[in-house]
Amino acid sequence: MTAAEVRAAVRDATIAGPTERLAPDYVQANLAIVPSAYAGELADLCARNPVPCPVLERLAPGAFEPACARGADLRTDLGRYRVWRDGALAEQPRDVRELWSDDLVAFLIGCSFTFDHALVAAGLTPRHYALDCNVPMYRTRVPLAAAGRLRGSMVVSMRPYKREDVERVRDVTRPYRIAHGEPVAWGDPTALGIADLGRPDYGDSPRFEPGEVPVFWGCGVTPQSVIVASKLPFAITHEPGHMFVTDLVHADMQTNVVRG
Amino acid sequence: MTAAEVRAAVRDATIAGPTERLAPDYVQANLAIVPSAYAGELADLCARNPVPCPVLERLAPGAFEPACARGADLRTDLGRYRVWRDGALAEQPRDVRELWSDDLVAFLIGCSFTFDHALVAAGLTPRHYALDCNVPMYRTRVPLAAAGRLRGSMVVSMRPYKREDVERVRDVTRPYRIAHGEPVAWGDPTALGIADLGRPDYGDSPRFEPGEVPVFWGCGVTPQSVIVASKLPFAITHEPGHMFVTDLVHADMQTNVVRG
Repeated sequence: MTAAEVRAAVRDATIAGPTERLAPDYVQANLAIVPSAYAGELADLCARNPVPCPVLERLAPGAFEPACARGADLRTDLGRYRVWRDGALAEQPRDVRELWSDDLVAFLIGCSFTFDHALVAAGLTPRHYALDCNVPMYRTRVPLAAAGRLRGSMVVSMRPYKREDVERVRDVTRPYRIAHGEPVAWGDPTALGIADLGRPDYGDSPRFEPGEVPVFWGCGVTPQSVIVASKLPFAITHEPGHMFVTDLVHADMQTNVVRG
Repeated sequence: MTAAEVRAAVRDATIAGPTERLAPDYVQANLAIVPSAYAGELADLCARNPVPCPVLERLAPGAFEPACARGADLRTDLGRYRVWRDGALAEQPRDVRELWSDDLVAFLIGCSFTFDHALVAAGLTPRHYALDCNVPMYRTRVPLAAAGRLRGSMVVSMRPYKREDVERVRDVTRPYRIAHGEPVAWGDPTALGIADLGRPDYGDSPRFEPGEVPVFWGCGVTPQSVIVASKLPFAITHEPGHMFVTDLVHADMQTNVVRG
């Protein structure tokens, strides 16, 4: 399937689950939509925290057709949305056209699903990918560098690997800088303030095999922790795992470095 | 004094102390010099952690005259150097010409001394500036995003302020993005893993007045924590507080955003 075909199937609810494994050649993205009064601060937060929040595209106020997917509509082309009011989850609609206004600014933020395909190709298939479930994600106690009214802590995704494979996993994911790049940490979850790996904050519970250690990457669900911690009056995001599939291909991303 | 005059006085040992308050209109910089085999990884570490490690300039292998200070010599124009071998502090020479080789790559990294002048102009004079001593700096437990063989944790500088002044302090320092920008945290030092504010890891002990809280900024001494944690075979840095004074002025920095 092409990215446009996936978006159409998601929009029509022919596809209902997470977008992992769909259109594997295409770059997937997290969505964060904020009132224009917060857009400069969100851009600044992302610039100051580029590993969890690498900006793929910032749209103009009111715009919902991104440059990275012409013909797409960010209000309808994701499987599930989260609507936030005063920092609390308020609704989980299938479509946000009725909530749209010219004052809203959409950010597309890189997603680690983008490199899972490369891990598969390298013979390092992520567990959640093999099991066809959602990647486990955790809120950490690693503070973000604050930006204006925005603050929060890093969210990470986790894939279990044998310790002897960690360096290869790092090498494979390092070039995907706009999709969080190489892991932020591996081995000890308490170094990130994660108390219980068996209970992720988002996604499905992990399954470890003997000798495996957790490997953690920055995660584009981080803006959702920012929305909560900063008590934003209003925001719209994707549901974790239900990503926006862009028309960009992996090869674009390997050259699109965060800083030159 | 101009920046060139400060550099000449430092080189001739006419000036011996920290460079705070000297040539206040000019941008000051941290120095980190690594073997060329580590330069790509250090650039990547800085890109992934731009708040503590904003790169002002990366020189070509073997070069010691930076574009931001023509005629200067990075081997002689800082007051004190630190030489690191296998991740341990080995020597603290006044000059590193004898240690120089064509294989060394120098990085200049932004310094918060750059905005202290703006805080003074706003009537928010930092305590260490008023007392003419060195700013207190602390190693934190906030992990950096790793890059290849390089890892470590963030170092922060600290300035005490009344709680009601914190928002103005944030506003004044926010535009100095290449000099760490706004604070990363304020109030509770334990959130950063700092156990005892009275015992900084670098610089002089702080003096608090009643009602003041600690305000923390990313600090360009962070690469020194990386050199230790990553056990680099060889590196040269400045001595904390003894900065390289560039020919760039503050106005250059307010427009030189880390990301556009």
